Amino acid sequence: MKFFRLYFTLLIVALASQTRARAQDPLPSWNDGPTKQAILDFVSATTETGGAKFVPPEERIATFDQDGTLWVEHPIYSQVIYCLARVPLLAKEKPELKNVEPFKTVLSGDFEAISKLSLPELEKIAVLTLTGMPTDEFQAEVKKWLATAKDPRWKRPYTELTYQPMQEVLKYFRANGYKTYIVTGGGQDFVRVYAEEVYGIPPEQVVGSAGATKYSYDKDGKPILTKEPKLLLNDNNAGKPENIHLMIGRRPYAAFGNSTGDRQMLEYTKAGDGARLCMLVLHDDKEREYAYGPAQGLPSTKVGTFTQPLYDEAKKDGWSVISMKRDWKRIFSFEN
Amino acid sequence: MKFFRLYFTLLIVALASQTRARAQDPLPSWNDGPTKQAILDFVSATTETGGAKFVPPEERIATFDQDGTLWVEHPIYSQVIYCLARVPLLAKEKPELKNVEPFKTVLSGDFEAISKLSLPELEKIAVLTLTGMPTDEFQAEVKKWLATAKDPRWKRPYTELTYQPMQEVLKYFRANGYKTYIVTGGGQDFVRVYAEEVYGIPPEQVVGSAGATKYSYDKDGKPILTKEPKLLLNDNNAGKPENIHLMIGRRPYAAFGNSTGDRQMLEYTKAGDGARLCMLVLHDDKEREYAYGPAQGLPSTKVGTFTQPLYDEAKKDGWSVISMKRDWKRIFSFEN
Repeated sequence: MKFFRLYFTLLIVALASQTRARAQDPLPSWNDGPTKQAILDFVSATTETGGAKFVPPEERIATFDQDGTLWVEHPIYSQVIYCLARVPLLAKEKPELKNVEPFKTVLSGDFEAISKLSLPELEKIAVLTLTGMPTDEFQAEVKKWLATAKDPRWKRPYTELTYQPMQEVLKYFRANGYKTYIVTGGGQDFVRVYAEEVYGIPPEQVVGSAGATKYSYDKDGKPILTKEPKLLLNDNNAGKPENIHLMIGRRPYAAFGNSTGDRQMLEYTKAGDGARLCMLVLHDDKEREYAYGPAQGLPSTKVGTFTQPLYDEAKKDGWSVISMKRDWKRIFSFEN
Repeated sequence: MKFFRLYFTLLIVALASQTRARAQDPLPSWNDGPTKQAILDFVSATTETGGAKFVPPEERIATFDQDGTLWVEHPIYSQVIYCLARVPLLAKEKPELKNVEPFKTVLSGDFEAISKLSLPELEKIAVLTLTGMPTDEFQAEVKKWLATAKDPRWKRPYTELTYQPMQEVLKYFRANGYKTYIVTGGGQDFVRVYAEEVYGIPPEQVVGSAGATKYSYDKDGKPILTKEPKLLLNDNNAGKPENIHLMIGRRPYAAFGNSTGDRQMLEYTKAGDGARLCMLVLHDDKEREYAYGPAQGLPSTKVGTFTQPLYDEAKKDGWSVISMKRDWKRIFSFEN
């Protein structure tokens, strides 16, 4: 009897501590290992009052690329799908588009031909679909599209295709006093429409590629801002640290990316004093998401290229490479 | 005896409630009147849960021009004084400047001649003194200058020449969940050096005129950002709402300015739905600060021009004009 009582007591204690450990794990969708540990160690070191690596709360800035880092970017960026989806709607208002390339190809619905559009052709589509309207109208259009459009593979809204492990990192950083910023090559106005709802990141903490706007008055004399076909900020490569300086004015303590477009942001972050955390997501999980590099012998891609030199720089400079396959217990929140 | 007890009790109650009223006044440096009341009413209306004009905390954005709105801008902007002060120091490194205009004039120390420099000449001085160096080095130089430079009239550091009534407005707004932003025609990098210490406004909440930066590597391979002689954002006039959209991505609920350069920011703010507060500081107090317009018959000026049409637009659109003379009990914190 006494033995059983002791046994049950120990069992209850063991179960309770297990439950507690699970409840306290801020990163439950990450497998245990050096990558997860690096995140935990960094946050712990930079928030420990009196510690050698303590960072004052006002300086706690963490920046996150979006496409391929926070959500799915393959086979093509969601914003490009938005632009293509807008073409038939605009062709109703402007029937002349039906006879002009590249819009004719987009309207043909020939996916093979569409996927072969050149960069200048895609730029023409971007100018047509992303500029020329008041900022308010653009926001309303994006919102409407997001509510109905679905990714063909998962048959879910694009906004559900965010990586659960990264959502946990965002929350964990914020719970520890970090301001989380998106620093994306994608359109700033586009991402701002959903960033607050999807990532808990307010518009003023979204830095992205941005066109100029023009202030004027409508026929009733009411001020409007119109999106102009003039690129102001190209938030890729060197543009990332340059725009971090412009928009935030502080060097981040942590930066997350997944492609060569994020290299300079991570270099700039790492070059600061004290503890700095730099991480790159490697898409090496064809079954659960996608596999592309060409680093580590993965298939080449034009969308979110992760080259071997980038991989080597990461290893040399002490950045962590997150293996989706190895480090992430689950990818999406809707998985069991 | 009983009478005295009652008398003292009443006196104590009266004194206590007076003290309480004073302690509770968030704007003690403002004289009572419609201007102060407009601020109190706006904050009260937009923060009253369930009220018709309630604004959710995440949307509470208030923008403030700096020169002439938060601190003294006469006889000339502090940043221009910084630029002029840098010329002799740079001439030590580059003696050839001594024979080249407009630097020769600046080095002559002839205030009369310096005050007559043209805009293109001042631009040459700005390019020399504000660009070409790493961002870190620029910040260090500005910090050093601010620590020693003094305004000739008050014989105090420029950072002490902030308006106490406006400091109270900043604090009052923040205490009510508003994010306070500086939106200045001055240099973003310049203002960011002291905005946190002087106004409690962090670098990421300073929007200003900004030059491009260029990402590169120093001789040791360390990343650096260099300030380029290329204007990226001109944060005056229509540039103010355009850059508010770029940098913040939300329309402000309150905006404060003092010159024609703030007109579009106030129009844009006022054009939003619900309660909006727009205010302009009118410098009509020659004794305690300066007097300039030319609105309301005040002397004309090139620095912080407040025209009569701006005054008329304010009256027509329901913006408040703050009279320094009438509305401000004291101007600076160092006054008795």
